[in-house]
Amino acid sequence: MAVQIIENGGITAPKGYLTGAVYAGIKSRKSYKPDVAVLLSDRQATVAALFTTNRFCAAPVTLGRELLKKGVARGIVINSGNANAGTGARGIEDAKAVAAFAERLLGLESGEMFVCSTGVIGEYLPVEKIQQAVEKIVPTLSPLAGSDAAWAIMTTDKARKELAAELPLSGGTVRIGAMSKGSGMIHPNMATTLTFLTTDAAVDRSLLQSLLRDACDRSIHLLTIDGDTSTNDSIFLFANGASGVRVESEADVEAFADALNQICLAMAKKIAADGEGASRMMTVETRGLSTKETAAAVARAVASSTSVKLALGQGRLGWGEILTAVGNSAVECGDIAPDCAIRSPLGAVTLCENGLAAEGVESRLAQILSAAEVTVSLDFHQGDGCGLAYGCDLTDEYVRINGDYRS
Amino acid sequence: MAVQIIENGGITAPKGYLTGAVYAGIKSRKSYKPDVAVLLSDRQATVAALFTTNRFCAAPVTLGRELLKKGVARGIVINSGNANAGTGARGIEDAKAVAAFAERLLGLESGEMFVCSTGVIGEYLPVEKIQQAVEKIVPTLSPLAGSDAAWAIMTTDKARKELAAELPLSGGTVRIGAMSKGSGMIHPNMATTLTFLTTDAAVDRSLLQSLLRDACDRSIHLLTIDGDTSTNDSIFLFANGASGVRVESEADVEAFADALNQICLAMAKKIAADGEGASRMMTVETRGLSTKETAAAVARAVASSTSVKLALGQGRLGWGEILTAVGNSAVECGDIAPDCAIRSPLGAVTLCENGLAAEGVESRLAQILSAAEVTVSLDFHQGDGCGLAYGCDLTDEYVRINGDYRS
Repeated sequence: MAVQIIENGGITAPKGYLTGAVYAGIKSRKSYKPDVAVLLSDRQATVAALFTTNRFCAAPVTLGRELLKKGVARGIVINSGNANAGTGARGIEDAKAVAAFAERLLGLESGEMFVCSTGVIGEYLPVEKIQQAVEKIVPTLSPLAGSDAAWAIMTTDKARKELAAELPLSGGTVRIGAMSKGSGMIHPNMATTLTFLTTDAAVDRSLLQSLLRDACDRSIHLLTIDGDTSTNDSIFLFANGASGVRVESEADVEAFADALNQICLAMAKKIAADGEGASRMMTVETRGLSTKETAAAVARAVASSTSVKLALGQGRLGWGEILTAVGNSAVECGDIAPDCAIRSPLGAVTLCENGLAAEGVESRLAQILSAAEVTVSLDFHQGDGCGLAYGCDLTDEYVRINGDYRS
Repeated sequence: MAVQIIENGGITAPKGYLTGAVYAGIKSRKSYKPDVAVLLSDRQATVAALFTTNRFCAAPVTLGRELLKKGVARGIVINSGNANAGTGARGIEDAKAVAAFAERLLGLESGEMFVCSTGVIGEYLPVEKIQQAVEKIVPTLSPLAGSDAAWAIMTTDKARKELAAELPLSGGTVRIGAMSKGSGMIHPNMATTLTFLTTDAAVDRSLLQSLLRDACDRSIHLLTIDGDTSTNDSIFLFANGASGVRVESEADVEAFADALNQICLAMAKKIAADGEGASRMMTVETRGLSTKETAAAVARAVASSTSVKLALGQGRLGWGEILTAVGNSAVECGDIAPDCAIRSPLGAVTLCENGLAAEGVESRLAQILSAAEVTVSLDFHQGDGCGLAYGCDLTDEYVRINGDYRS
């Protein structure tokens, strides 16, 4: 695939996107990290989005679902530090007040700006602070400020997560930009992942939505953090057509989908690997199950098992943790132990074959597990269903670090 | 209830039970903690048992299910250090070899001794070591060695867990004794809980099984450790009738059931609170849901949420973590936020009422959360279903401590 990564590129790498970010003081902080960002397309964009499946979605998610029905928008106001979740009817009004303020200031029609929040749950949104921040941001909006926005959306993230790529289509070159917020650690109500994607390709609304869903199903949806969905998880994809190139022909759709998949997967890996305490990223592959749904559920059960994550963090993941997690998954996968191997760039070792655990593999396993990325591979020999899940380890450092998110 | 706790009592407090324990060297250890124990009734006992629901049950569980069909037995050989799980057909043969050896030595018939194992998964049982240990134990079997057995079954447990009580029935006084192994921490494949109960009452087999099931449903089954079942989880209840008192009349059955419930609940709390790193025990009560199954599932979702456990460990559990966990539970519980309060011996605070989060409760909440036991109470105002779950916090100390279980 001819996808070309754009060095230091992010959300504003595609044409026609502007961002800005300032410190609004939503939380008292030691540093003055920006906490409000605006993303604006200089023209109307089609928009696709996916939101959390958590029953108690945050106010901006409720509003977002409503606005998405239009399928076109100009941009989004994002704040960190306060999730505007568990805030009832007032939360919805607050979210609308922020959007309306930005729309007025930008001379837009009602419903053209989304809002997105992440942070502490159960506290009312400091609407005035955010409006004042938007007022400061609007005159500074720039195609060069993508990194500021990626910084503003961080909460307990230890690193900005941004990426952009360029790809040739039949009508010319288009770009896709991305920024994400989220971390592979266990975060009290901070498991929230936010991902914002932009493209200067023109893509029809329904195609855009299905491309986004497919890409997420192969990346961010495979990412298991602490087994919880958050109240605020959201993914947006704007397509403003500023490149003058329309994604229409089958070959172009395929190329664009492939690029989007690659970017989403890279962002998911960035999220999984985020944080000082994060030492190991884990991929769980399952095959030989009756259906792909079963295979996905088993992969997810292994990747999200606290025991597996903890053992991985301590470099001593073994057959016991994996077998227990598989056996504990709430799906029908037989009672014959699957074949199992663990591999990393440092080698591969078989843990179980033909229902029998391998013995004396500890020392080789310990070496393999010292790599930063580890793959657990399970074969059930029952059918054609394959599955995949991404996760990360759990270390005491994680737990320590994540105690600080309110401070 | 006239249940009388027996000071320092344990598994051998009821009449007719003998135990012994020695160090067999199953794992290389720094200390010489006993790792094999034998529990013997001096006469045939009816026996009830419950085993893990994990798909990959250990060999002793498979064997135990088979032996349980007889409904009578004389005792059990228990080892820690090796789970005899994931060991295929050879594991079953190994378990049988241990049982047969003990039966021969004790002059019993085949099928009169159960076996039970806990420890590392995926390694073959060191059968000879265990047989040699049983040979050493048999001449020392004593009604005074209950604590040794409770010590022998420990793995990462930080404290022995034993308890005994006496209760008057219409025909005389009977006793119930108990020992458990397990810890409220997150244990790589060590989430295993083992509980052994003895009584000198005479109880019919089917009644005994249903009493055990009821008691567990109200206690150990409400205990969520890391959301995983283990390959080896087992609960045994022996009733040898040595007191000469039969549990038959409705009043006696009720009194006995109540005592058994109390003992199982106390043991569940001992398991939940085990360990140096364990600082807080959590009870989650749910009410006002459509069914008791839904209510139980929601309670369990909250008690097992990594976010909730972590926040509790850091003394800053709040509405955000709880709401997210409820919303993430895979059951239909409406989308109106439940009323929520947290209480402890140090006070109570309302987190949410009529769908609205309370504000400014942090400082009072912090005080309440400093207690060793905390209750989270949720009311959904939709029906009559009530539920309950027990759990504990998650601290960085836990994670550190639990890295050491193989050493």
